[in-house]
Amino acid sequence: MSYISHKGRLLRKSEVQLSIASTEDKNLALRRVCESLENNRNKILESNALDINIAEKNGMKSGLIDRLRLDDKRIDGIIKGIQTVIKLEDPIWKSDKVWTLENGLTISKMTVPLGIIGIIYESRPNVTADAFSLALKSGNCIMLRGSSSAINSNIALVNAIKEGLKSSNISEDVIQFIEETNREHVLEMLKATEYLDLIIPRGGSGLIDFVVKNSSVSTLQTGVGNCHIFVDESADLEKALNIVNNAKTQRVGVCNACETLLVHEDIADKFLPMLYEKFKNRVEIRGCDKTREIIEAKEATELDWEEEFLDYIIAVKVVKDVKEAIEHIQIYGTKHSEAIITENLSNANMFLRRIDASTVYVNASTRFTDGGEFGFGAEMGISTQKMHARGPIGLEQLVTNKYVVIGEGQIRK
Amino acid sequence: MSYISHKGRLLRKSEVQLSIASTEDKNLALRRVCESLENNRNKILESNALDINIAEKNGMKSGLIDRLRLDDKRIDGIIKGIQTVIKLEDPIWKSDKVWTLENGLTISKMTVPLGIIGIIYESRPNVTADAFSLALKSGNCIMLRGSSSAINSNIALVNAIKEGLKSSNISEDVIQFIEETNREHVLEMLKATEYLDLIIPRGGSGLIDFVVKNSSVSTLQTGVGNCHIFVDESADLEKALNIVNNAKTQRVGVCNACETLLVHEDIADKFLPMLYEKFKNRVEIRGCDKTREIIEAKEATELDWEEEFLDYIIAVKVVKDVKEAIEHIQIYGTKHSEAIITENLSNANMFLRRIDASTVYVNASTRFTDGGEFGFGAEMGISTQKMHARGPIGLEQLVTNKYVVIGEGQIRK
Repeated sequence: MSYISHKGRLLRKSEVQLSIASTEDKNLALRRVCESLENNRNKILESNALDINIAEKNGMKSGLIDRLRLDDKRIDGIIKGIQTVIKLEDPIWKSDKVWTLENGLTISKMTVPLGIIGIIYESRPNVTADAFSLALKSGNCIMLRGSSSAINSNIALVNAIKEGLKSSNISEDVIQFIEETNREHVLEMLKATEYLDLIIPRGGSGLIDFVVKNSSVSTLQTGVGNCHIFVDESADLEKALNIVNNAKTQRVGVCNACETLLVHEDIADKFLPMLYEKFKNRVEIRGCDKTREIIEAKEATELDWEEEFLDYIIAVKVVKDVKEAIEHIQIYGTKHSEAIITENLSNANMFLRRIDASTVYVNASTRFTDGGEFGFGAEMGISTQKMHARGPIGLEQLVTNKYVVIGEGQIRK
Repeated sequence: MSYISHKGRLLRKSEVQLSIASTEDKNLALRRVCESLENNRNKILESNALDINIAEKNGMKSGLIDRLRLDDKRIDGIIKGIQTVIKLEDPIWKSDKVWTLENGLTISKMTVPLGIIGIIYESRPNVTADAFSLALKSGNCIMLRGSSSAINSNIALVNAIKEGLKSSNISEDVIQFIEETNREHVLEMLKATEYLDLIIPRGGSGLIDFVVKNSSVSTLQTGVGNCHIFVDESADLEKALNIVNNAKTQRVGVCNACETLLVHEDIADKFLPMLYEKFKNRVEIRGCDKTREIIEAKEATELDWEEEFLDYIIAVKVVKDVKEAIEHIQIYGTKHSEAIITENLSNANMFLRRIDASTVYVNASTRFTDGGEFGFGAEMGISTQKMHARGPIGLEQLVTNKYVVIGEGQIRK
């Protein structure tokens, strides 16, 4: 039996128990895991130091090393994250739809776990604990495959998690970590329809594309956000400036940051100089020809409209009206988050209906597309696909349904 | 530009209009299509006669020829099906979840169309009209690829549909039919992530497996049902017999028919002779050793537990209790529909929670797993997967969501 099959079988076996475990048992298990992470804090930090050491020797960029690094504060954060999940409502065996047929059959559409979730992720070791806790609370087993650069940290984290589970009523087998980081195991995971019900890739667009293209298992695509803000003619320009500044600079390396600004031509003369002042020496502006007639800016190329900068760079285009803004977004948007700043109701409605994205905003920053901000408590990423889940993936998105039909001997006529 | 890309672009273009079309416009379009199908009745029947002629020459089995055949009654059925869809509630731009954050942002989770749905289907030409009408009502464009055996019938149907659309406010481009039936176009569809948001294969397990394995586009798996009925010790045996008979024989060639019967050992002596009498000369029984000690039956092999007979054949196994029944179903079930016949509440609950299937029954026939029976009005098939939609795929399953966020200048802190 292959390495992945072996782990897959352990998961399928423990799925039987976890899928119907009580909320009490699941929360107890998560509390035990928190305690164990606390008890193993030093081991985890030592293992992480090993990874950091290797990364530095390999000349990894400092930004990436920072993402890889664990310290006491970050371990506190991991434990706090699990405590948040403990407090969240159990999403399993609930119904918002119960109905009775004419023949007396009563049908309840119940929520049930998906089964076994595979996560393939890069760098940040805290994903290990985050993904595990969301999976467990939603009754799902999990197979984790982290990056080789975080291998020691991840193994230490998983060992601590398993140690915690051992003193709970949930089997330690509900979590399986792929310790061998060769690519063959990733490919085998992607074909393991027998053992995995869902694969979520978390990382850069290279990883996501590879997983989506090669997976026979259903995938949840997270990630790429080329988000736009359109400042309409009727916009309150102070509000608009504040929102654009927030969406661009509050945190630049995230998928819900603004990458392209579209400005109505009738207010460009007034708004662009305000923007220029705000961004001076902080954010590089790459503008279309009309923009560059009004303010000093680099020339924007076709590539800039497509790019997710994840940096202190913004592309700026002057457009004729809301329709041209919508058309631009239809071409270049990645269906993540899009905003219109306007005081005109018709334009707001047109934008909301016509823009095809997970989240559309009127007069607010795109940075709110986030499980925590939405009130989901925690998230597994933000889905940019249309199937199954769209937008932040919280506990409620990690379930499927089962129709329960109660009869008294009914047969079909 | 390739053949598929050309059709894909036409669909993406018409998607912009259809995705926000009013219910009035969509219903008018469907009424015009009904009229056009009526007006083109003879052309459709003539084209179908061509297909039947070729099929007979090629020695197609009579059962398959029957599925391929259209007559006045079946065309009436197609038109009636569309009229049913007209009456169904529009599933688009609704919300059952609106909430407001502490900062005053109001979030509405709105239903929106998926975009463009691809259907790859075998034989029965009525799927062409059924799938089109469900797609249109849910605001989705559709790319259809039927079997070569039904090519003339399908082209005639699609021409009639397009003719109807021409006199409506919806573009005739919302439906694109692949007239060239070579396999390359199927493979191209399966990779056309740019043009298709979902592919639904409808047909035998060979087609479904091929599509799921090779598709980069998200798929909805429909189909294979190896459905079980477990008759518990406490069952009302008359009810049980009636249900088993209905689930096995009311229609044998369908995915929600019963294929294996599991009988509690304490009532096997009494129930199996009743079953034998009922099925004598009608249904072939393939039994385990214990079954064959009680009644005359062929010997069941391992293959019989796995098989979806779709025929007047049933596999019968005597089990120790509800736990052994559940274990058997966990091994051999296809997660479609499973039933327990019992008067024991604990056993019923155990079965309902532990069986992992789209639909689980207490004291009713598995034949009810059906969009029409469930009250969905019509269906695109029955999903046996866990992602996106599970069970009958009606209009409500052909949508995705968009979060609409309304603010007054909120920025993230």
